[in-house]
Amino acid sequence: MPDSFRFLREETALEILDQRLIPFQVSYLKCTSADQVASAIVSMAVRGAPAIGIAAAFGVALDALAGRDVERAIRILWATRPTAVNLFWALDRMRSIAGLPPDIRGDAMLKEALSIWEEDLRINKAIGANGSVLLPERAKVITHCNTGSLATGGYGTALGVIRAAVEAGKDVEVFVDETRPRFQGARLTAFELFSDGIKFTVICDSMAHWLMRTRRIDAVLVGADRVAMNGDVANKIGTYSLAVGAKHHGVPFYVAAPSSTFDLQCPSGEAIPIEERSPEELRTLGAETLFPEDYPVWNPSFDVTPNEMISAIITEKGVLHPPYGASIRSVLGFEVLKP
Amino acid sequence: MPDSFRFLREETALEILDQRLIPFQVSYLKCTSADQVASAIVSMAVRGAPAIGIAAAFGVALDALAGRDVERAIRILWATRPTAVNLFWALDRMRSIAGLPPDIRGDAMLKEALSIWEEDLRINKAIGANGSVLLPERAKVITHCNTGSLATGGYGTALGVIRAAVEAGKDVEVFVDETRPRFQGARLTAFELFSDGIKFTVICDSMAHWLMRTRRIDAVLVGADRVAMNGDVANKIGTYSLAVGAKHHGVPFYVAAPSSTFDLQCPSGEAIPIEERSPEELRTLGAETLFPEDYPVWNPSFDVTPNEMISAIITEKGVLHPPYGASIRSVLGFEVLKP
Repeated sequence: MPDSFRFLREETALEILDQRLIPFQVSYLKCTSADQVASAIVSMAVRGAPAIGIAAAFGVALDALAGRDVERAIRILWATRPTAVNLFWALDRMRSIAGLPPDIRGDAMLKEALSIWEEDLRINKAIGANGSVLLPERAKVITHCNTGSLATGGYGTALGVIRAAVEAGKDVEVFVDETRPRFQGARLTAFELFSDGIKFTVICDSMAHWLMRTRRIDAVLVGADRVAMNGDVANKIGTYSLAVGAKHHGVPFYVAAPSSTFDLQCPSGEAIPIEERSPEELRTLGAETLFPEDYPVWNPSFDVTPNEMISAIITEKGVLHPPYGASIRSVLGFEVLKP
Repeated sequence: MPDSFRFLREETALEILDQRLIPFQVSYLKCTSADQVASAIVSMAVRGAPAIGIAAAFGVALDALAGRDVERAIRILWATRPTAVNLFWALDRMRSIAGLPPDIRGDAMLKEALSIWEEDLRINKAIGANGSVLLPERAKVITHCNTGSLATGGYGTALGVIRAAVEAGKDVEVFVDETRPRFQGARLTAFELFSDGIKFTVICDSMAHWLMRTRRIDAVLVGADRVAMNGDVANKIGTYSLAVGAKHHGVPFYVAAPSSTFDLQCPSGEAIPIEERSPEELRTLGAETLFPEDYPVWNPSFDVTPNEMISAIITEKGVLHPPYGASIRSVLGFEVLKP
């Protein structure tokens, strides 16, 4: 799997893998300023909440290293995407050291950006290690959307669990939901699995239930955009459908998510706002148009899977089991109490 | 709603509405031979089990009228699609009169093809009338694939029930599964509903479960490609997924199908062969390519919904309830005993 990011010290440049060209072309955008990074985020060359946060941190560091206005850099990057929590979290971390003297600020900010990236990678590896033990030696797994290297600093969350299981010598076959309407499964997840030589098959989202009925499926493994304090999970639309299918067929349903995804402000899934996106996502695909503009469309971008349908939530701190109210508080409490 | 077929007596030609151009263009393919009809079926210009049966019957009649080899015509049409039981049923009807003297055979076969078409229309109206009473006065319905005028001789089966309910003055809103991989819902069903001024919304297949959870849905209403003698139903891939969702959410799951869809040779769904179609259906959309050719794909065209998940089967002879083994035999027995 090619790296999602490459930092070139000699050139003081961040190279960002252009996800818009995946799976057909591996090409990097070279960014030497916050403006260029912001434009990569806005144009969706980089997507996935953790990946956006990392890119933004580097964007601030690039301007700091060049002696440009750091507050302006943060402001511009802040405005790139309205809902990506990791983006604001990463920019807040950069801002906290913006007051350092100019002669050491650039290096400190570069170090901070590298830390954010490395921490994300380390967290994903820990999620992978914790989750891979849940899969049997020969595992057939269904996954949804992209939760891999492309969406994160590397390795991935749910896809990280699959990578870790393969590295542990397990025989894993992945069924990849194409993930309508934007096809992140068929385009991004399939690309990652193909790159890593992991066995996979692309299916339509509507085939997953039939697959569960006609073949032995050992697990459904998905990521999370946000986890409420009772364990309800907001994730890409179609996740809930898989959960209903998993329950009906007695297949374990696992969510892989860093503990930063848990939302202290959110008691249950009912409090999670569901973004509705443009009808164009269903209506058009590149140059192709499926139906006229005057056909009404419903396009919720996320759904919420209720806690009682989730077999376990895999975090970097361990595997959480029901009742999630208690296990989540315990895992977050541990962090809060740390010195 | 434009006609699916037009038979031009003066030109001895069958005009088939080219479904590949819907919803953007209403255009007819003129067929004057079984070969042309077979090619229209294979190329999916005409699709939907009853429509295929009608087209095939006309294909045989066209060759008979032109004095060509009728057995060859039947053989070629027989090989076009493996799962469509109406195709074989219609061709068997044509074959039963293939032994008539050549001077009257052509006209007799044309009459038979016209009968098959007219019967289908009459049957669909009866299905509509029988099924519409199952829907409440204000009904929100999810449907899958195309079961309308385009899939039949006219009016439709599941879509016929919706049409009949609207004609009976009910306030019906239809949620249309786009129906991957070929988008028959988003393209064909939406076109029919738009043409008839019936309220509808297009959704991705993966949104149906979330829709059932977040809004009151009164029924899932689908068609059938084949019904086994125990009531198991083979239909477009994704139907089973809806059935699992309907069961989980306590939504009635109705199948609308003419009794010709019941397969006497087929004791249960396990005996139904599932056609697997080309990976290209997932991989490409018109000029757009989603992923490289070397990504493995699973593309079953149908799935089987087990009888215990079906609330009722709506036929032209009445509404069948579980246990289907008994209700189906009773409905077919009535037909077999007819003089």
